[in-house]
Amino acid sequence: MQLFYLPHLNTNSFEFSEEESKHCIRVLRKKKGDAITLIDGKGTEAIGIIESDNPKKCSGLIQQKTLHTKPQGTSIHLVICPTKNTDRIEWMLEKCIELGVDQISFIYCENSERNKINLERCEKIAVSAIKQSKQFYLPQINSIQSYEQFMQQKDSVRTEKYICWCPTAQTETLAKQVAQSKPSSVQVLVGPEGDFTIKEIQLAEKHGYKTCSLGNTILRSETAGLYAVTVLVALNQLNA
Amino acid sequence: MQLFYLPHLNTNSFEFSEEESKHCIRVLRKKKGDAITLIDGKGTEAIGIIESDNPKKCSGLIQQKTLHTKPQGTSIHLVICPTKNTDRIEWMLEKCIELGVDQISFIYCENSERNKINLERCEKIAVSAIKQSKQFYLPQINSIQSYEQFMQQKDSVRTEKYICWCPTAQTETLAKQVAQSKPSSVQVLVGPEGDFTIKEIQLAEKHGYKTCSLGNTILRSETAGLYAVTVLVALNQLNA
Repeated sequence: MQLFYLPHLNTNSFEFSEEESKHCIRVLRKKKGDAITLIDGKGTEAIGIIESDNPKKCSGLIQQKTLHTKPQGTSIHLVICPTKNTDRIEWMLEKCIELGVDQISFIYCENSERNKINLERCEKIAVSAIKQSKQFYLPQINSIQSYEQFMQQKDSVRTEKYICWCPTAQTETLAKQVAQSKPSSVQVLVGPEGDFTIKEIQLAEKHGYKTCSLGNTILRSETAGLYAVTVLVALNQLNA
Repeated sequence: MQLFYLPHLNTNSFEFSEEESKHCIRVLRKKKGDAITLIDGKGTEAIGIIESDNPKKCSGLIQQKTLHTKPQGTSIHLVICPTKNTDRIEWMLEKCIELGVDQISFIYCENSERNKINLERCEKIAVSAIKQSKQFYLPQINSIQSYEQFMQQKDSVRTEKYICWCPTAQTETLAKQVAQSKPSSVQVLVGPEGDFTIKEIQLAEKHGYKTCSLGNTILRSETAGLYAVTVLVALNQLNA
């Protein structure tokens, strides 16, 4: 089942952008009268009937709407420094969204090799990943900010905050810490390829972050981000 | 710390291939008298002293060897169909190895879009991933065979065997099933982009495989493979 994305599904009709129209009519060869499934990334699934199969401006009527509730379990917020190589962070983004991350923020640190991110491209990847994995909620992707700015943000007091940093072999893994506390919401910070500085770790600790390890092997930045999200998804499944 | 890989470290001297020599001498600018760290992918870590810094044939003497024991926990064997797009399966391979998979086998099924794999290239990726993640054991990578051939293989009776297939929402997740049984060794089968056929599932069940789900979202083949491995790595951490 192919899903079409429209951020606003609160009317009784729909009209696609030129890109989505082309995809629907030219690529998928949908025609006037065909039923299609639309999502708004906010939980709504709708059945639409194509009225105009114009490949530049496809439009139609909404026939039926269903509101899906958000999947239960710990809400997952990944905070990560973009890698120097954009491909690596983009595939990580795709995979994290397929698995069901709720929010992703980008930051740059003292040892970061990149302080820019193409947010529009990230949002396209996100839309495509939820369509692909048949999810009804689009994760929130926040534009990049400095580590210090990020630290000033206020979070829900119920959010447990972790920073991946492993000074000794005794640092407890993210998996174990979260399995014990079963929080409603978790935020995990993953550092740049050159790692966090001691000063950054101290600042995080001042803001209530606990340090955690991701295990004994040394992970690339993007593997660490994906691994952290996967651990949290797996714990949600264990507790379901 | 940069690691150099040599499959045989059972003598008191070492000699690199042309490729590794070039990397050591030209790229990393190591010189005669420099100490380097070598691994054999079978648990040995050795300190070597460069005697000849010839960029085509670097060689030297081994000074000290340490044998690392294998990390404890459930041994992880992923069995997967290569994706049509080689990039996707290659990055999955890299990530699974960074995380600590023990064995990977490739198979082709009725719905497979690819029945070949470049094993030499996979082995290069594997060596590079263990060097990168500072591991001492090289996972075993098996060349591709048909699903039916694979099913004829004999496994250790202690291996728990799972096939990812989700006919109903009631199918238990891999995470939950393995968390309950804590086996010493797990084998997980991930299907091709077109999924396993009913006949293939029945054959697996005849051979003692249990069906398992990977959760509620629909994962691409390579995401499913990586996710299955990650769940098992995370459970190892929880039980450590």
